[in-house]
Amino acid sequence: MAAQAVNVLITGANRGLGLEMVKQMVEGKIPVRKMFACCRDPDGPRAEALRTLAKEHPNKIYTICLDTTDLCSIKQCAQLVDSQVGTEGLNLLINNAGILLRHSLLETSTEDMQETFNTNIIGPMNMIKEFLPHLRAAVKTSNIPGMSTRKAAVVGISSLLGSIHDTKETYSNMSSVAYRISKAGLNMMTMCAAAELDNDEILFSLLHPGWVRTDMGGKDGLIDAQESVQGMLDVMATLTEKQNVSFLDYQGHPLPW
Amino acid sequence: MAAQAVNVLITGANRGLGLEMVKQMVEGKIPVRKMFACCRDPDGPRAEALRTLAKEHPNKIYTICLDTTDLCSIKQCAQLVDSQVGTEGLNLLINNAGILLRHSLLETSTEDMQETFNTNIIGPMNMIKEFLPHLRAAVKTSNIPGMSTRKAAVVGISSLLGSIHDTKETYSNMSSVAYRISKAGLNMMTMCAAAELDNDEILFSLLHPGWVRTDMGGKDGLIDAQESVQGMLDVMATLTEKQNVSFLDYQGHPLPW
Ligand SMILES: NC(=O)c1ccc[n+]([C@@H]2O[C@H](COP(=O)([O-])OP(=O)(O)OC[C@H]3O[C@@H](n4cnc5c(N)ncnc54)[C@H](OP(=O)(O)O)[C@@H]3O)[C@@H](O)[C@H]2O)c1
Ligand SMILES: NC(=O)c1ccc[n+]([C@@H]2O[C@H](COP(=O)([O-])OP(=O)(O)OC[C@H]3O[C@@H](n4cnc5c(N)ncnc54)[C@H](OP(=O)(O)O)[C@@H]3O)[C@@H](O)[C@H]2O)c1
Repeated sequence: MAAQAVNVLITGANRGLGLEMVKQMVEGKIPVRKMFACCRDPDGPRAEALRTLAKEHPNKIYTICLDTTDLCSIKQCAQLVDSQVGTEGLNLLINNAGILLRHSLLETSTEDMQETFNTNIIGPMNMIKEFLPHLRAAVKTSNIPGMSTRKAAVVGISSLLGSIHDTKETYSNMSSVAYRISKAGLNMMTMCAAAELDNDEILFSLLHPGWVRTDMGGKDGLIDAQESVQGMLDVMATLTEKQNVSFLDYQGHPLPW
Repeated sequence: MAAQAVNVLITGANRGLGLEMVKQMVEGKIPVRKMFACCRDPDGPRAEALRTLAKEHPNKIYTICLDTTDLCSIKQCAQLVDSQVGTEGLNLLINNAGILLRHSLLETSTEDMQETFNTNIIGPMNMIKEFLPHLRAAVKTSNIPGMSTRKAAVVGISSLLGSIHDTKETYSNMSSVAYRISKAGLNMMTMCAAAELDNDEILFSLLHPGWVRTDMGGKDGLIDAQESVQGMLDVMATLTEKQNVSFLDYQGHPLPW
């Protein structure tokens, strides 16, 4: 069984959905060997719950300082992960970190757009590029046929608000123009990565967590982080090459581009 | 008939598709009152053909210096247009200016992404915002019912490469990751604009010009600029509120998001 345990990296792991993913994963659903819980300020007040969790799971949870808008920070993170996983590689990269500005089109500034694109599109792109050697190493080491999140996968946490098709229906509830564009952009970037790395046996997936009661989702969210993450982990466990690239909600329902 | 003649603004009007649009529009298809042909360097060598054309159509073609990545430049352009159109407003805004970097995912840098997003997404967004008063003025002056490019419209020159759905099929011919993301982003931005300005009777449309032999399209393009623009102008002339927001190629065929 030990051979099936996976090495996982999660960005934005100090609060919200990222923290809940770390929690549920180390507690069992997908057997985890090493969990790299990355966040901007692992020693600061916003990472207290993560530090507590890490203490409870020594030699399993590794907290790493990572700002996904900083390429140098990503490169350092990749080196640190490398020193821990060696030829085993990284099985699962979860690009979860994201920001949401609630501005409408008329309120959105050039800077709003740039900041949002840096975090929600360019960050995940650079993560894929810098961790590609580790994902490839995981494929090489694995004896599992086909594609799966247990072998080598990149999961992007996208959003229903990134669905171009559904914009007309969802816009009146929440405009958030820069965010919507960034998630549509994340979807396109992921499609490109999957097309370019077609022969690498790395699975790509885009998940919508539902409307969740986190700092980002707010108090009116329809579900809590526990339910959302439970759903997303169940979906991740079922993904095969047939769902490459899928855009699914936390219950496994497909969403339109 | 004079009342039906339109005021039009085109960005990137000095060469390629933009220049051809200016040419065909002042020669008749859609009757033009005033044509604002905007480009980055109206006095430079790349605008020679535009200057010649403008001399042949005095009091019709107005060349304006405009860099669409510079908000101040857009604001100045809006003031200049304002002084020419007054309460008539602007009927048709064509966001044509764009850049294409041919890099694959692994070749694409943070700076490639930022430069491309600035030109292909944020530029068109700021154009819409700054010219909104002129588009609204055109609606107010017009006595045409419904929506049309003769009344008030924003046409974004998008691309088949911006179709997330078609990426798997088109990727091997041309990766251009930053460009693809930017055009998907332009599509989403346009959907947001249409949703937000739902009550303004401004038509939004996204057109794919085909693969065209311009500096961007290269020598292997399947059609020339004349055929592409003829097709796009024919499509524009047929658009009504039923096609708000449509994503169509130069022959009027719908493309998937
Ligand atoms: N909540 C929802 O309803 C909902 C719905 C759809 C999609 N999503 C998506 O789900 C993901 C997680 O959302 P959430 O609800 O958990 O949001 P959240 O509670 O606001 O947490 C966001 C996380 O992202 C991190 N982050 C932001 N910028 C970063 C950067 N440059 N580098 C590293 N980390 C960064 C934050 O770190 P700091 O603590 O340092 O700020 C935080 O850990 C996001 O991608 C979001 O778009 C959420
Ligand atoms: N050609 C094709 O096959 C094809 C296919 C699909 C979509 N398109 C789209 O069609 C549009 C026109 O393409 P094209 O083939 O005519 O390209 P092109 O020949 O390369 O011309 C691009 C135009 O955009 C202008 N431009 C670029 N950045 C600008 C900025 N910051 N401010 C103002 N103007 C700027 C250029 O001005 P300078 O002369 O100053 O550089 C030039 O006038 C683009 O949006 C392109 O993405 C083209």
